[in-house]
Parts: sequence; structure tokens; C-alpha cells
Amino acid sequence: MYDKNTKTYIMGHKSPDTDAIVSALVYAAFLADHGHDVEPVALGEANNETKFVLEHVGMDMPMIVEELPDGAHIVLVDHNEQNQSIYDMDKHEIKWVVDHHKMGDFSTHKPLHMRLETLGSTASILHKIFKEKGYQPSQQLATMMISAILSDTLHFRSPTTTEEDKAIVEELNTIAAIEDLHEYSMKMFSAKSDLGDISAKELVQIDYKNFEFGGMKSWIGVIETTDPDYALGRKEEIVEAIHTIKEETWLDFVLLCVIDILNETNTCIVASDVEASIVKKAFDAETSDHIAHLGKRVSRKKTIVPPISEALSS
Amino acid sequence: MYDKNTKTYIMGHKSPDTDAIVSALVYAAFLADHGHDVEPVALGEANNETKFVLEHVGMDMPMIVEELPDGAHIVLVDHNEQNQSIYDMDKHEIKWVVDHHKMGDFSTHKPLHMRLETLGSTASILHKIFKEKGYQPSQQLATMMISAILSDTLHFRSPTTTEEDKAIVEELNTIAAIEDLHEYSMKMFSAKSDLGDISAKELVQIDYKNFEFGGMKSWIGVIETTDPDYALGRKEEIVEAIHTIKEETWLDFVLLCVIDILNETNTCIVASDVEASIVKKAFDAETSDHIAHLGKRVSRKKTIVPPISEALSS
Repeated sequence: MYDKNTKTYIMGHKSPDTDAIVSALVYAAFLADHGHDVEPVALGEANNETKFVLEHVGMDMPMIVEELPDGAHIVLVDHNEQNQSIYDMDKHEIKWVVDHHKMGDFSTHKPLHMRLETLGSTASILHKIFKEKGYQPSQQLATMMISAILSDTLHFRSPTTTEEDKAIVEELNTIAAIEDLHEYSMKMFSAKSDLGDISAKELVQIDYKNFEFGGMKSWIGVIETTDPDYALGRKEEIVEAIHTIKEETWLDFVLLCVIDILNETNTCIVASDVEASIVKKAFDAETSDHIAHLGKRVSRKKTIVPPISEALSS
Repeated sequence: MYDKNTKTYIMGHKSPDTDAIVSALVYAAFLADHGHDVEPVALGEANNETKFVLEHVGMDMPMIVEELPDGAHIVLVDHNEQNQSIYDMDKHEIKWVVDHHKMGDFSTHKPLHMRLETLGSTASILHKIFKEKGYQPSQQLATMMISAILSDTLHFRSPTTTEEDKAIVEELNTIAAIEDLHEYSMKMFSAKSDLGDISAKELVQIDYKNFEFGGMKSWIGVIETTDPDYALGRKEEIVEAIHTIKEETWLDFVLLCVIDILNETNTCIVASDVEASIVKKAFDAETSDHIAHLGKRVSRKKTIVPPISEALSS
């Protein structure tokens, strides 16, 4: 599967969430147990939810990298788009991709292995791979995988959730033995919602992905929180931060969706007329005073990005 | 996996080879047996090898299509690049991809299923999928799958061949019961080599794929044959046909590799200085009198395309 003599770096996406970090760590553990020379790495700081999970299971955060030597062997988990990956991705040799997102202008020089499924998390796909190979994860790994699934599916509230994800959590919990999954996920979500004393710019950066839609370069941020009022109360500052980010970069538009995890609503902060016209075109939503209500669209991958992609490609 | 109420079209690449046609037919049969409304289609005429195989097993050629209604649900087998697929691919909903090639600028609006493995043929991957699902192919389907594997791996001579492909053929042959695989593959290769009375332009078109490398639009044709002298003897005509094709299209370069299946050599017809400089850059091969000898590079996907992709992306 891999050249066992060449170190392979396993990485999730930039602005990593729990699924990105956990999938890199868990897949690396699996591959190391099969004799491969692998190193899990991260393309950014862990968020507070991920820190809570890693602390809970006693696992170290992977090394954060910005660049790798040209020609490094890499495995992408939880993403495939160049904009969301390691700098100069096309200078590396991509050996494997395990992901559950849409594909974005993905190219390689050589054939490779890819496994994409429309499940709620990358950790769910890893569970299937492990099972096919007869690999039993440890309690630590199983707990991490459950955490990633609960995080990505908002404990089964997100429309990305499938029956398979629920069954996988049940199966993994025979190993992880988390007593109360609801209580555990509430602890995770509280950790994620505890944004502390951070700047408005950091709020916009907390969980963002870059996409290119029909030539338009975008940044779509989400804040998944049990306390939407905190971010929405700082709307003016956030609008200003978005303007700064756009001035500093090559971005055509920046959206920040504040997702109320418990009530499953999406309140989008709309910085300018450009964003307002996109929100109108993609969701038929009106903007008033920098706010557009996007209803129950709580999943970037399933209910936010596809309408924008379709609206801007036509 | 699919919306069982929406017809899904299963298709291999343009300028189809045996693996492209067989994989579409076999995967469609599997999905139909699981209650899905599917239709295998082809993006071009079958070659003589494929016709031999379909006749041998008594299977009809799929319908040849040029366009589908916008928004059709499609499954791509044996390819992923837009240049090699249905017209306006991005207007359709790609539900699944099963492939063993490199990725080329592939994009979707929504998450999807993909399974790419570096095996010798797409039929080999389908075999693994069937096995995982506990699906036993009929003798007809098993014979078609073996044919696709033997075709794509040049009966295990191609460097794309893996031990897994060999084991899969052995396993499938417990169902197909082909007495002498060598004899059968020679019949396939003779059928493929019987080019009959075709024009030089048709020779260039017999098995080609379009790629984009660092902005350069290309056409890379191969003629896999037991009788390379036939095509090489028509070199002057072929060079002229390549010039015509380039004039009629937006192509930056066209290569035609004549692959001697039995002796495993690649003699490339080089139409102009543009092609000569690419062959020099990618393979360090000199061109003399419109011919460059590319040694044992008998696999477009493994030993022809990657060096060109690397040379032209840097």
C-alpha cells in the first residue's frame, strides 16, 4: 500500500476540526501498527473541542507543519482541495485520500488510492476500513473516533448524519465504553463554544475553508456553538475583520455562518453587497443589517456549499 | 447508495477500451441486481477487442450516448477527468466514481462516493466491491471481468499489474472456467491488432485520452498491438493526420505511442518539434525522423503520463 521505507505524512485540513485531527492520528496509529513509517501532522492549531478530546483520552496533539520537503509522501484525510491543504500540495506525492467532502479541482501526477463516502465523518470511513482489515482499535482510538463522529454530525443533528454513522458509534462504544454519549457530546460542544477572549479576526478564522467556485475565491467560515449570541453580539467587529481579511488576501467573498448547534439554525454574517448577492443567489435569502437567516442549513458540506457551488458555476 | 427512483447512467471513458465498456456493463448488472434503476452507456464505439469479448460472452454493446439531460445522475467507471468524460460533465450529479487512474482537475458540487485503487484494471476494483458485498457474478460477468483485467494489464505484462490482479483472475476463473488464459488473451490481442482498413486519422483516434498538463492541452494515443509494423509503416500518413487533428482542435500536442504488446516496447510517433521537445523533457528521448524510442514504457497511466505531467507542471 505504501512504500514502507519512506516516511508518509498523514494530515487533515487547515483550520482543523476534531475529525481532521483525530482522523490523522487514528489512521497513523493503524498504519504504524501495520509496519508503515508514518507521521501524523496538523495544518493548524487544534480548537478547544479537539483539545478537550485529546486531553480526555491522553493523546498528544500532532506536530503542526507549514511545509514539507518537495516530493514527500502524503496521505490526506478529511479533505482533498488544494486550498485547504498543505502549501504546494502538488509538489508532493499523494498516496491515499480518505474523505467525505465534495471534490475540488483535485489533480495528481500518478494513480493513487482514494476512498470517499458520503458518511457523517472521516472517522466513520476509517472505522469501515479497519473493520475490513480486521483491525480492532484500542479504547483510546475508539473514544477519539466516536468524538470525531459526534463532532462532525453535531451528535446526529446534522443532515450529514447517516444510519451507518449511528451504528458505527454504537459499535465503537462497545470498546470506548462512554457511559452517557449525550453528556459527553455536551461537554465537547461546551468546550467548542468556550471561545474565550479572542479577537474578531480569530472568530472568523476559527473554522473556515477556502473554495473556488467558477473562478471566485471564497472563504466560508462557521462557528458551531451552543451560544450564538456571543458571536452575533460582536457582529460589527466581525464585519470589520472580514473587510480586513479580504483586503489582505485574494478573496472575492467571505461568509461567516453562526450555527446554533442546539436549535439547529444558521445566522450568517454578511459583510458587503458582494456577499449579500451571493446569499440571495444561492439561498434566496435577504440580508438586513449584515445578517441573513439561512434557516436549518447547519452543514457546510451538505447544505451551505452545494447551493453556492451550483449558483456560481452556472 | 443511490436514489433508487432516479435512473443512474454508468459510463466508462471516451475512446473506450475493454475495461471501460466491461466495467460499465458489469457494475450496472450488479446495481440492477440490487434494485437500482441503472443504464450502462458508452461514450464511443467499442474497439475490435471489446467486440470480440462481448460476442464471446453473448452480451450486447451498451447504448452510445453523446449527451445526457442536465442533472442526470451518473457513475463514472475507469476515468475521472472531465476531458475524457461525458460532455458537460459538471452539469450532472456524479454519485460514484470507481477508477484506477490519476486524478485530473476533478470537481463536484456535492460529496460523493469514490473508490480509487492502484490496481491493474477497474474490473479488479469491482471484483473487490462485489466480494465485500457478498455478490457472486455470473459466468458471463466473470468472463467479462477477466477479459478486462487481461486487456488492461496486457495479460500481466504491463507494469500496472499487481499480485492482487493475478489472484483476482484466478478467483474469477473458478466461475468463468476459461481453459487456457494465454490462448484466450492472444485471441483478444489478435482481435485488437486487426485494425483492418482504417484511415490514418482513425489510427490516431483508436485509443486516445485527453489530458491537461500545466495549461497545455494534450492528446495521448496508444496503439496496443502484436503487429507494430503495420502502424509504423504508415508513419508519414499518421504524422499528417496528427497535424490535421491539431489544426481542427485546441490541442497543444498529440503523441501516438505504438506499443508492441508481445515484446513490450514503445515506439512513439512524434509529429513536430513541439512533441519532440516534450518527449525530450519528459523521457530524455531523442526524436529522429518522427520516431522516439521510449523503451519499455508500455503503460500510459503508469509510465507515459506521470513523467509528462511532472515535466510540464514544473
